[in-house]
Amino acid sequence: MSGAPAAKAAAKSVAVSPLAPTRYPALAPIEGVRLAAVDCGIRYRGRDDLMVAELRPGTTIAGVLTRSVTCGAPVLWCRDALPAGKVRAIVANSGNANTFTGRQGRQVVEATAKAMAKLIGCKPREVFISSTGVIGEPPAAEKIVDGLPRAVAALAPDNWDGAARAILTTDTFRKLATRQATIAGTTVTINGFAKGSGMIAPDMATMLAYVFTDAKIPAAVLQSLLISGTDRSFNSITVDGDTSTSDTLLLCATGAARHKAVTGPRDRHLKDFRAALDAVLVDLAQQIVRDGEGAEKFVTIDVSGASSARAARRIGLAIGNSPLVKTALAAGDANWGRIVMAVGKAGEKADRDRLVIAIGGTRICEKGGPVPGYDEAPVARHMAGRDLHIEVDLGIGSGRATVWTCDLTHRYIDINGSYRS
Amino acid sequence: MSGAPAAKAAAKSVAVSPLAPTRYPALAPIEGVRLAAVDCGIRYRGRDDLMVAELRPGTTIAGVLTRSVTCGAPVLWCRDALPAGKVRAIVANSGNANTFTGRQGRQVVEATAKAMAKLIGCKPREVFISSTGVIGEPPAAEKIVDGLPRAVAALAPDNWDGAARAILTTDTFRKLATRQATIAGTTVTINGFAKGSGMIAPDMATMLAYVFTDAKIPAAVLQSLLISGTDRSFNSITVDGDTSTSDTLLLCATGAARHKAVTGPRDRHLKDFRAALDAVLVDLAQQIVRDGEGAEKFVTIDVSGASSARAARRIGLAIGNSPLVKTALAAGDANWGRIVMAVGKAGEKADRDRLVIAIGGTRICEKGGPVPGYDEAPVARHMAGRDLHIEVDLGIGSGRATVWTCDLTHRYIDINGSYRS
Repeated sequence: MSGAPAAKAAAKSVAVSPLAPTRYPALAPIEGVRLAAVDCGIRYRGRDDLMVAELRPGTTIAGVLTRSVTCGAPVLWCRDALPAGKVRAIVANSGNANTFTGRQGRQVVEATAKAMAKLIGCKPREVFISSTGVIGEPPAAEKIVDGLPRAVAALAPDNWDGAARAILTTDTFRKLATRQATIAGTTVTINGFAKGSGMIAPDMATMLAYVFTDAKIPAAVLQSLLISGTDRSFNSITVDGDTSTSDTLLLCATGAARHKAVTGPRDRHLKDFRAALDAVLVDLAQQIVRDGEGAEKFVTIDVSGASSARAARRIGLAIGNSPLVKTALAAGDANWGRIVMAVGKAGEKADRDRLVIAIGGTRICEKGGPVPGYDEAPVARHMAGRDLHIEVDLGIGSGRATVWTCDLTHRYIDINGSYRS
Repeated sequence: MSGAPAAKAAAKSVAVSPLAPTRYPALAPIEGVRLAAVDCGIRYRGRDDLMVAELRPGTTIAGVLTRSVTCGAPVLWCRDALPAGKVRAIVANSGNANTFTGRQGRQVVEATAKAMAKLIGCKPREVFISSTGVIGEPPAAEKIVDGLPRAVAALAPDNWDGAARAILTTDTFRKLATRQATIAGTTVTINGFAKGSGMIAPDMATMLAYVFTDAKIPAAVLQSLLISGTDRSFNSITVDGDTSTSDTLLLCATGAARHKAVTGPRDRHLKDFRAALDAVLVDLAQQIVRDGEGAEKFVTIDVSGASSARAARRIGLAIGNSPLVKTALAAGDANWGRIVMAVGKAGEKADRDRLVIAIGGTRICEKGGPVPGYDEAPVARHMAGRDLHIEVDLGIGSGRATVWTCDLTHRYIDINGSYRS
């Protein structure tokens, strides 16, 4: 953890994404949270692949999970456990998604939860489980179960860095975020880490993300805050339009901070906390796009003037998912014709003659055609950069949304043509 | 035309798709149809870029057009002209899509229709127009208008080949199809040609396709036959999930054949004709996939047991559009886990434990997991070939659909990173 240069610290064999943050943030301990990472040899060699977070008794939990109808066994487990709103541990492995693994996959989850519960003295249903990696091959339960005592022995309050590394798959850097907020005058901390690089078009949440706070917030309130924050963060990013079977976002509140009791999701004392939570979620979501498989450019798509916020997001995602837009962006080509095409196919209301498109702040088309004699030089300079900005105004309403995506490059094909081999 | 080896006859600079048909079909003349192709220098050098088809008086027409809300000026023109059901000419240019070109684009269409109508003595509204190529730059009207007299002078009943070539853009081979059918004992012919290679996820029709017959069929009946045929052909293919702004499929019936009058779309004498028309549409649609940008493999996805035919098609398209599935196919990887993922995100009813997936005829997964000990050897052999077959059975209903797609390769990125330059 703590400010090591990202480019140096990340995985060995694969080059770090050129969009990686220049420094990792330093995450302070959160009272009631301890973390560990160990190597269980599930798939990878010579790296940690099992993350355990232990939470103090009384910790509340909220979560959003993939809406995929072919979701994995760990997602089904979490879905059943969430309504109780209580958590004592999170166990996550990388290298194997334990998805489409039938009865055997379910048994792995149950064995893991039971073993972990016994180690720390809680109910199996207070253990949340995630798995990420290859689909369709049941992981070896004994490898995970054997790793748990070692992990519990290694639990430490400052191992955010190790925990964030252990859940990575095709990621080229670890993804950490932290913010502070005050609740009724008391300072609380929000720390989170995430993984995700491909199969990113989250539908409720991204691959895996874990957020922790020492705030004392009832589970139902936490869930409400998390859902609204997810829509503007993980549900607004896309790498390849493919929705994972394992998407899991969990938010745990240990309640160690001694602030005034929170009454409900609209409690005015939660305003600052909500903003900080949203910032952590957006930060992590953007880092996932910055580590999009093969990504060379990070793209912010601001859609305004749509018939609703939902329509704006759908239009933004239609642009952000279009392989033709994404290959043009990779080539540094300000091909706004393909943006027009994507707006046209989004299935939302649009009026060709009111549509305004700007790239890098330069208005390129309006009134049903290109802006006569617009200056191409600043647009070309902008397109040559790493961070691209596309603005689309529909001119028909007040709905707006921001969507983040990356370009589509040869490396995406290299990575996904060889993932299993 | 007529049986020339496809590999030799197609475009010069670009390698012909490895999925191209080994021979082009020979198309016989259709009474009442004459065709021409000329070089107008719209964008390309040294090749024809303007196609004109002249139809005899009394020819009926049906058409399906893109549902994109940012469709081009020629599509808007055709949409207005179609309800009258009459056609005397089709004019199509390549190199410029005349889309998002504002008032200027509309003027180009009007000038073209007017000039053509004058040359052959008909109303401008009986001239149908298509344009395909770059979006956002109005084409030079005078180039098209100047080319029309030359084209009219060159009209010939057997120039199917030249017409099919003139409308190509990134295509690597021309797409022709022909069938014969009998209507109440009289033999009629159906000829068609099409173009399309990228921006292929048709929503009502593909980029450009023109089908002609000498059958005598009222426009309303023709339209009904065309709509039902389109759903199972052009609306069931995808190259990249991007829907063109120019999709146009026109079907013209000259009425030169002397068969018994047709009473309506359900006339039993139309049964054979309908089957032949469907075969021509599927043939052309499949050729577009076989010329998908960068395609190395042609993929047939058979979905069965879905809750409805519509659900089956959506699931098939979710698989066929998934970049993760398509990159795996390109690598010859029978990565059924990604097929499970695509089924999961399709937004249609599915039950993980009833899902059955077979590749190349080998059942690979069922009952929520991989088939224990299935033979990987025939699957690997199948995956190494050019024509791949994926079968997905949902096991919950009787809805079925077939979708065709291609793999996603490095060449797709090369082609679309450099299209405008």
